[in-house]
Amino acid sequence: MLRSRHLLGIADLEPAEIREILETAEAMKEIAARPIKKVPTLRGRTVVNLFFEPSTRTRTSFEVAEKRLSADTLSVAVATSSVTKGETLLDTVRNLEAMAPDIIVMRHGSSGAPHLLARLCRSRIVNAGDGMHEHPTQALLDAFTILEHKQRLDGLKVAIVGDLLHSRVLRSNVHLLGKMGVDVWGCAPPTLMPRDLPRFGVTATTSIDEAVQGADVVMMLRIQHERMHGHYIPSTREYFELFGLTPGRLRRAKSDVIIMHPGPMNRGVEIDSDVADGPYSVILEQVANGVAVRMAVLYLLAGHDAEGD
Amino acid sequence: MLRSRHLLGIADLEPAEIREILETAEAMKEIAARPIKKVPTLRGRTVVNLFFEPSTRTRTSFEVAEKRLSADTLSVAVATSSVTKGETLLDTVRNLEAMAPDIIVMRHGSSGAPHLLARLCRSRIVNAGDGMHEHPTQALLDAFTILEHKQRLDGLKVAIVGDLLHSRVLRSNVHLLGKMGVDVWGCAPPTLMPRDLPRFGVTATTSIDEAVQGADVVMMLRIQHERMHGHYIPSTREYFELFGLTPGRLRRAKSDVIIMHPGPMNRGVEIDSDVADGPYSVILEQVANGVAVRMAVLYLLAGHDAEGD
Amino acid sequence: MLRSRHLLGIADLEPAEIREILETAEAMKEIAARPIKKVPTLRGRTVVNLFFEPSTRTRTSFEVAEKRLSADTLSVAVATSSVTKGETLLDTVRNLEAMAPDIIVMRHGSSGAPHLLARLCRSRIVNAGDGMHEHPTQALLDAFTILEHKQRLDGLKVAIVGDLLHSRVLRSNVHLLGKMGVDVWGCAPPTLMPRDLPRFGVTATTSIDEAVQGADVVMMLRIQHERMHGHYIPSTREYFELFGLTPGRLRRAKSDVIIMHPGPMNRGVEIDSDVADGPYSVILEQVANGVAVRMAVLYLLAGHDAEGD
Repeated sequence: MLRSRHLLGIADLEPAEIREILETAEAMKEIAARPIKKVPTLRGRTVVNLFFEPSTRTRTSFEVAEKRLSADTLSVAVATSSVTKGETLLDTVRNLEAMAPDIIVMRHGSSGAPHLLARLCRSRIVNAGDGMHEHPTQALLDAFTILEHKQRLDGLKVAIVGDLLHSRVLRSNVHLLGKMGVDVWGCAPPTLMPRDLPRFGVTATTSIDEAVQGADVVMMLRIQHERMHGHYIPSTREYFELFGLTPGRLRRAKSDVIIMHPGPMNRGVEIDSDVADGPYSVILEQVANGVAVRMAVLYLLAGHDAEGD
Repeated sequence: MLRSRHLLGIADLEPAEIREILETAEAMKEIAARPIKKVPTLRGRTVVNLFFEPSTRTRTSFEVAEKRLSADTLSVAVATSSVTKGETLLDTVRNLEAMAPDIIVMRHGSSGAPHLLARLCRSRIVNAGDGMHEHPTQALLDAFTILEHKQRLDGLKVAIVGDLLHSRVLRSNVHLLGKMGVDVWGCAPPTLMPRDLPRFGVTATTSIDEAVQGADVVMMLRIQHERMHGHYIPSTREYFELFGLTPGRLRRAKSDVIIMHPGPMNRGVEIDSDVADGPYSVILEQVANGVAVRMAVLYLLAGHDAEGD
Repeated sequence: MLRSRHLLGIADLEPAEIREILETAEAMKEIAARPIKKVPTLRGRTVVNLFFEPSTRTRTSFEVAEKRLSADTLSVAVATSSVTKGETLLDTVRNLEAMAPDIIVMRHGSSGAPHLLARLCRSRIVNAGDGMHEHPTQALLDAFTILEHKQRLDGLKVAIVGDLLHSRVLRSNVHLLGKMGVDVWGCAPPTLMPRDLPRFGVTATTSIDEAVQGADVVMMLRIQHERMHGHYIPSTREYFELFGLTPGRLRRAKSDVIIMHPGPMNRGVEIDSDVADGPYSVILEQVANGVAVRMAVLYLLAGHDAEGD
């Protein structure tokens, strides 16, 4: 049982709650392997996917998760909606929640938007990414994937490499992995390195070789196109030379290292295709696990209803 | 039982039909309060939502209504569709109805478009807003909301304030409230006042104080952004001063007045936030009731099938 | 039982497979005539509609087919998606298939894209149109419609008139009709005539009168707007005069001729409205049959699962 009615960020979760979500996801994963990939758990429940930023992967993953739980789903892309008519964010969400959804899954470009709404609305809210703040289901699916391969988190060395400064995936992973006893390393060019990493127990380095050295897990983060030709990095070619994950660099990692990427990948920018498609890559497993983890989150949050909270 | 297979406008309905829809909506509203918000009424029926104008609220409300009735739904936004390939409106609709939908819910920018199609097509058509003509489910949900609070329509004073000239919400409400014995007042600046209001039994005034005086219901209409800086109104600030609903002005109304707005609101333009969020506001109840009323309409129209019409 | 797990094109099908799809479609068509237009055949199966080109008709037809089979459906329009973030086509599709869909229905602007993916992915793939190459379900629904009216294909004269050069509908029809013993005629202006028609057993002509002469079926193809004012045709008026199907020209055909068009039509360009809406037109029947044929294809491909291939 989760303490909160919402999943806003990993920062708010206790290790026991993280473990409960991951264990529930294991049961959910089994459903996707059946010929009939559907359970009646959320039948008659309404889940609204409210995306203020475009997203194919995350929205699709949530939609699949919702449908496999038999929920009625509704996807609202708000770039093309009433927000353009001058309505406030709060009015948009209150309007939706007047239709009695059970859960609102939301992505928003502003950090903290889901937290604001959780305070002001009655709906259960799942944060599907808010600005540069958190993306909790991504960190949960990452942890689930690591556990499948390593059977533990405690004591592992996980190197996270890429644009750390703008990454909500980094932030959620740092919270989760830190709570679970992981030795987290962050590697980025100085222009894309957050200053406060050490405060979260993360070892910061600008050397990918140092980050990968002896790592159990290497997690590559995407370089946004808009950062590529600005003052953040001089060129994609130079970035690849200094920070791209290549088969050569990978030899410094543990022999059973796994390679992760939240996607979408820039092949030849942050990751070599031979690594992305190679034997250590678990990138597509992450996607598959994303559905299971999101099913688990929706199931556990909806459980609050049944208890009449 | 409705006489028509379509819901094109309030103008065509008899008071007994309006009452039947509102009574059916009462039963439907109860479904949204259940943990399993779903009835099998329209299972195996196909409802197409055909929107030639963007709309989040109305489309979402219909989709939720359809899913709670277990219909298979299909939403087609036609700005991005074959109409841009030069196909006629009639061909687009005939093409859709060849796929054997039970009901087509349509919004179109041209007044009378649903009426044209109802004559030329076999499908049941629900008008979800046509140009500046009618928006019948909005007027029905408004009446439902008033009835919940006042237990009657006959003899009430309802003041409708805002851009009356371009409002299909006004037109549908004038028809409905007039048929039900309501004393309807319309208030707008001279540039946004239709000339023919008195012909429909509406008392026209340019003084909001006069309109609100002794009112049981004040319904504020949205000022479209495109009217704000043209020759219709000098400025949003001046509009708010002359026509905005403020707590001060509200004191002229009955002590149990209710405040309505079809949304989306322009806070600080036609309505003060203190009024929109205040104790008299039933704006979010309108949204909730919209789902119930649309479920009722879909249920009653689909009933025609069962009777083999 | 189809030999392949995919439906990539008509070129790959044997006549017996075509017959099996058309016979299955007959059973499926009966479902659309029921009050409850739904069978549980694909319950718990996930079908992803992945459209890299906008399409209302084809996507809608597939969605209706999927819902009538009780599949969980997911529609992804990729113009607005991660492809714009620089992800490769293969990564996009692999990412989707990691979510364990049973079937991916895809449309893509590049000829051969579905064939490439069928080789590289695990998913069953249905080609919903690839570049100027094939559109197999269109040819199947065309054949189904002809059979309903003529009870045979063998020995019929079918004239296909219009922009043959850029038409995947032509290519799929030429394959299908050729395999089934039809006498196929292709008619186009010289600028829109493919050179290799005779190689496929098609009689090429630039005279619509000759093509229509004694025809059992006349199939009109759409002239794309982008061809209209270029060097392909001098003007839409001249095109209509030389190649438009008019009631006068139709008199050369058999007395029980049927007129087909894959839509969307350009009335007054390739077809006269009197013909499009006249007694010989089966254009809307084609649309209705499209749903049945797509249900049949999805059913037969999903059957591979049950057999554990």
